[in-house]
Amino acid sequence: MTQILDGKQLSATLKSEIKTAVDTRRAEGKKAPHLAAVLVGNDGASLTYVGSKVRACEAVGFESTLIRLEDTITEEALLEQIAKLNQDPAIDGYIVQLPLPKHIDEERVLLAVDPAKDVDGFHPANFGRMALELPTFIPATPFGIMEMLERYQIETSGKHCVVIGRSHIVGRPISILMSQKGPAGNATVTLTHSRTQNIEELTRQADIVVSALGIPEFLKADMVKAGAVIIDVGITRVTDESHPKGYVIKGDVAYEEVAAKASAITPVPGGVGPMTIAMLLKNTLLACERKA
Amino acid sequence: MTQILDGKQLSATLKSEIKTAVDTRRAEGKKAPHLAAVLVGNDGASLTYVGSKVRACEAVGFESTLIRLEDTITEEALLEQIAKLNQDPAIDGYIVQLPLPKHIDEERVLLAVDPAKDVDGFHPANFGRMALELPTFIPATPFGIMEMLERYQIETSGKHCVVIGRSHIVGRPISILMSQKGPAGNATVTLTHSRTQNIEELTRQADIVVSALGIPEFLKADMVKAGAVIIDVGITRVTDESHPKGYVIKGDVAYEEVAAKASAITPVPGGVGPMTIAMLLKNTLLACERKA
Repeated sequence: MTQILDGKQLSATLKSEIKTAVDTRRAEGKKAPHLAAVLVGNDGASLTYVGSKVRACEAVGFESTLIRLEDTITEEALLEQIAKLNQDPAIDGYIVQLPLPKHIDEERVLLAVDPAKDVDGFHPANFGRMALELPTFIPATPFGIMEMLERYQIETSGKHCVVIGRSHIVGRPISILMSQKGPAGNATVTLTHSRTQNIEELTRQADIVVSALGIPEFLKADMVKAGAVIIDVGITRVTDESHPKGYVIKGDVAYEEVAAKASAITPVPGGVGPMTIAMLLKNTLLACERKA
Repeated sequence: MTQILDGKQLSATLKSEIKTAVDTRRAEGKKAPHLAAVLVGNDGASLTYVGSKVRACEAVGFESTLIRLEDTITEEALLEQIAKLNQDPAIDGYIVQLPLPKHIDEERVLLAVDPAKDVDGFHPANFGRMALELPTFIPATPFGIMEMLERYQIETSGKHCVVIGRSHIVGRPISILMSQKGPAGNATVTLTHSRTQNIEELTRQADIVVSALGIPEFLKADMVKAGAVIIDVGITRVTDESHPKGYVIKGDVAYEEVAAKASAITPVPGGVGPMTIAMLLKNTLLACERKA
């Protein structure tokens, strides 16, 4: 019987825990965590993402502020906005929704974020602290995967984990975290990517596969070992005129055939995705607690 | 015919290149790079290491300053010394020789080093920049391995590299660097450690093995594939009364038997070790150039 790693349910549990922590803070006369989100322009997907983050804040009792800026804003004006957020004592943490318009240097903006308020964990100071096992903000997606592995008590110690994809926001950090000591850690991790040869030889050896590639249904049943644990981070819109929206969301994993072979698997949607917002909230709560 | 990756010779070449760069700077009326080293106490091995670093500076035309402090120094007094070095415009880069006496919080001291002068590359801000592929100081040992692979034109792209050991100063950074894009990169990297099961099954698959474990002659011939490239980072003193010093230096690799099977191998001593000081000099030159 394959275990479904239900990110929707688990994220609801996490949000409920976070809400309890906020309620306790309020009862003790402490301020509620306050997350700000900076959104430049009118990109539809970005609006959707930021909207759900703001709604999630409200649901757990956080304060939230959405700062919407015209896509014609200059880099300097955006940096001034960042400086204001860094200085504002009311704001515990904030995110800058990516992508930014092309005339703005994304790297320069992210480096301007105060690491103490960088609840996305994208600043190199935080990334380095993560890699060196110091207290930090872990980027939400890998943080969500670690939380999921831990809560579902998936054994990782001594297991061989093959990570597909070396992005800075998923593949790289999860490969680091799972090979460190601690909960959901101590795995032997192989990081694979576009230059990897014979990737199926590696995935077939894996006790755990984490796929963060962005190619729909890339991972087939003949590429995994019976009993493997499959974590699917892929979220790709695939055109499908038979659906009312005109598309369906596909993961990196050919779900039906792989699920039949795996011991545990995350569905898409409803797996890793919902964990991401919960971990952003957790980071914001952490930022608020650390400031005190 | 097994290729010997001669770190002694290569580091001499690098030092000569660095000396040329320094001579050019001087000829252009620019200052020479200036490295400072902080040594607390009288530990014999630390004295030896720091001594060779200072001599290496002199050999390439750098300025150098050795700051010796009593092992009874308080943490606060050491931190004041660090603050002075951060502020001193004459100092381009500096190192704090480890280990520090037990009453001093090593982490606190390393975090006090200005990342712009952190030529050891141990500060999380620099480590994070490395992991996120931004300009930084790469820790000397992994930097030396990358330089060696590149200069000896060892193909790494698409190759499977197994790293043994997950230390912050060797295993972790080399596993990150070799799996990134760029020279000596694009490898598929497996990071193994004390919790790894059946490590020999992994090392036998490896096109490249980087061992940074510290167990003398751990890696035997039956654990490696014919034609593999072997990088031995281990340096362990093994008692041997038949030698005048009373000990011999052993690597992680059973050299004779593994060399017979490998396509290329680093000797110990004379392999990775000598590269380390050369890369510290290179980082100091970089620090000096970046400041300008």
